Amino acid sequence: MMKKQILLRLSAFAAFFLFIFQVNAQFQRGPRIVSPDVNENCSVTFRLMAPEAGKVTVSGSWMSGWGTQVDMVPGDSGVWSVTTAVLDPDFYTYSFYVNGVKTLDPANPQVVRDGSRFDNAVIVPGEASKVYTVQDVPHGILSKVWYPSPTLDKNRRMYVYTPPGYEEGKAKYPVFYLLHGAGGDEDAWTTLGRTPWIMDNLIAAGKAKPMIVVMTNGNAWAAAAPGEEPATGETETTGFSQRTRGGFENSLVNDVIPYIEDHYRVLSNPENRAIAGLSMGGMHTQNITNANPGMFDYIGVMSMGLMNDPRRGNYSEEEHKKQILVLKENGVKLYWIGCGKEDFLYEGAINLCKFYDALDFDYEFRESSGGHTWANWRLYLSELAPRLFQ
Amino acid sequence: MMKKQILLRLSAFAAFFLFIFQVNAQFQRGPRIVSPDVNENCSVTFRLMAPEAGKVTVSGSWMSGWGTQVDMVPGDSGVWSVTTAVLDPDFYTYSFYVNGVKTLDPANPQVVRDGSRFDNAVIVPGEASKVYTVQDVPHGILSKVWYPSPTLDKNRRMYVYTPPGYEEGKAKYPVFYLLHGAGGDEDAWTTLGRTPWIMDNLIAAGKAKPMIVVMTNGNAWAAAAPGEEPATGETETTGFSQRTRGGFENSLVNDVIPYIEDHYRVLSNPENRAIAGLSMGGMHTQNITNANPGMFDYIGVMSMGLMNDPRRGNYSEEEHKKQILVLKENGVKLYWIGCGKEDFLYEGAINLCKFYDALDFDYEFRESSGGHTWANWRLYLSELAPRLFQ
Repeated sequence: MMKKQILLRLSAFAAFFLFIFQVNAQFQRGPRIVSPDVNENCSVTFRLMAPEAGKVTVSGSWMSGWGTQVDMVPGDSGVWSVTTAVLDPDFYTYSFYVNGVKTLDPANPQVVRDGSRFDNAVIVPGEASKVYTVQDVPHGILSKVWYPSPTLDKNRRMYVYTPPGYEEGKAKYPVFYLLHGAGGDEDAWTTLGRTPWIMDNLIAAGKAKPMIVVMTNGNAWAAAAPGEEPATGETETTGFSQRTRGGFENSLVNDVIPYIEDHYRVLSNPENRAIAGLSMGGMHTQNITNANPGMFDYIGVMSMGLMNDPRRGNYSEEEHKKQILVLKENGVKLYWIGCGKEDFLYEGAINLCKFYDALDFDYEFRESSGGHTWANWRLYLSELAPRLFQ
Repeated sequence: MMKKQILLRLSAFAAFFLFIFQVNAQFQRGPRIVSPDVNENCSVTFRLMAPEAGKVTVSGSWMSGWGTQVDMVPGDSGVWSVTTAVLDPDFYTYSFYVNGVKTLDPANPQVVRDGSRFDNAVIVPGEASKVYTVQDVPHGILSKVWYPSPTLDKNRRMYVYTPPGYEEGKAKYPVFYLLHGAGGDEDAWTTLGRTPWIMDNLIAAGKAKPMIVVMTNGNAWAAAAPGEEPATGETETTGFSQRTRGGFENSLVNDVIPYIEDHYRVLSNPENRAIAGLSMGGMHTQNITNANPGMFDYIGVMSMGLMNDPRRGNYSEEEHKKQILVLKENGVKLYWIGCGKEDFLYEGAINLCKFYDALDFDYEFRESSGGHTWANWRLYLSELAPRLFQ
């Protein structure tokens, strides 16, 4: 009451700055917490103010083993902390767990969504992580674009990255279609994948050609990312069985590519079309390119292998062989396969290589360390993009 | 080890789906949690699985009083829950607190950022919240655009919403510049403000004219939202004192408007220029329109009052009066002021009205219930946009 009267006596201007001060104070009770704190030696210290917590842990993408957590230690004024070992330069994600419940780091506004999970992010600086870092170079434009999909009977959303200079000039550009994995959506490559920054940095360094990058939603039952689509009553569960088998793949060819070629200044021939995808997106990439030989001269399959499971109803090895032979005849400038040695699909990737070997179909195999992770997919993008359209 | 061997014996395809199943299982231990659960009567039930927590609360934007929390009650299988009273149809934000530490609702992928805070979001359906809801209507395109700002000596980022049909036609459009408040950035109107959905819905219903909406970053020291700008070593603290006084306002006039008018198909005359802002953005709006009479025919000041504090070094009441008289002479089609009765700046808004009354300067005052909140700013946008360019 007292406080309100004081506020009323102040002018709007003074009250406004007093308010801002109070807001800041509210969210910074006690000493200001710095977290994550990247140390000189490239270890990282995490801190969380949690005086009432019984147990606080951190889980991060640098830890081996899915879901591994490391205890944080309570210290002065209720601040829990832990310091990692020295980390390689990279883009990492992490979360805290307070009494078993996952929470974000309130001192770090860097947050990325992975499906329905939210994690904080931190970059450990160094030569290898520079390509993931926002640098003071010309930036492309990233747009959320809605397009009609008669194939899937809805308006759907995708992201389109146009390179620096697109808005100013009249040049036509090659197009790279970049597909996410299961559990992801059209946001994934733009956030976890760091695509806009990777492309900005590679283009600025003269390492990649200026190109348009199209990032679609590969979930055929969905119009857009969660909460960004009209409610239809249709859910993943009902839609999955009905719509996974070819729906997205057909819509990319029938709806997305024509939309892009109609609405952007693009070079619309096979030499100027590339496609790549991770995990489920690697399966989509195979399905699309096998069924449409001669459409793409650059093909990338990340963390996905040969899909030769007899339980996959409509799979025929004979048909697959024929498709690859047609692809081979039509010519592909680069067929790139990337997989981590610890990826649970590693054997599948090796089998895919063997399948192509047997057909004398040229490909390039990039074997990295690590597993089925965004660390690898960012790395693959930063290595593959410079190879496109050269 | 056993598990790995089994995985290796399966094909890539089977392993892939097994993996997806495991990922889902990991994040849905125990029974599937539904939260938020909007009940038939428009109360909302919140649930959180937290078997190891000692105390769980929820804080939501429907509660009166900043930072109010309501206890959740532990139930079977470690699930805490609480049901609200019946809520008005609206877009709400909320968070959980577990043993005093704020956490997101892991069952709800709807998350919005407010400065460095992250909250979940939920829409209570009804006539009043329909305009905030994603509907199956034509959608505009939202782009993250970088533009040169010689005034602030950096490349800066803004959002540009182009209305449905922009990409297809040749028509020119009016432009609405929409400014955020202190603590926000260029993301704020696009997320918390629901601007793309509000505009899509108003345009589809024929209530608002198709227009371009430009959402800038009003923090003169920043290039873009946190983590989206190159590291410069410059911080809010060092930049604030140097750059708040007119820097952003000048850059909007000198850099942003020319960029938009050069790069988009716009109607570039006063009748087709509107500007509005909330809180600090309402201050920016006043500064910009007072200093540039005849530039905008539509002006909106949301939750900001008369800034007549003598401590504001360069303020002169005489000068202000002269500016408003010039503005009056140049003509403004709509000068719209909105403020909530419980806003701490309400008295300032009333003083602004009185100041204009004394000068016989026409304005419209929209007094709403509530305070200095996004609930009001979304409401104001949905009421103001239909009044523009008519």
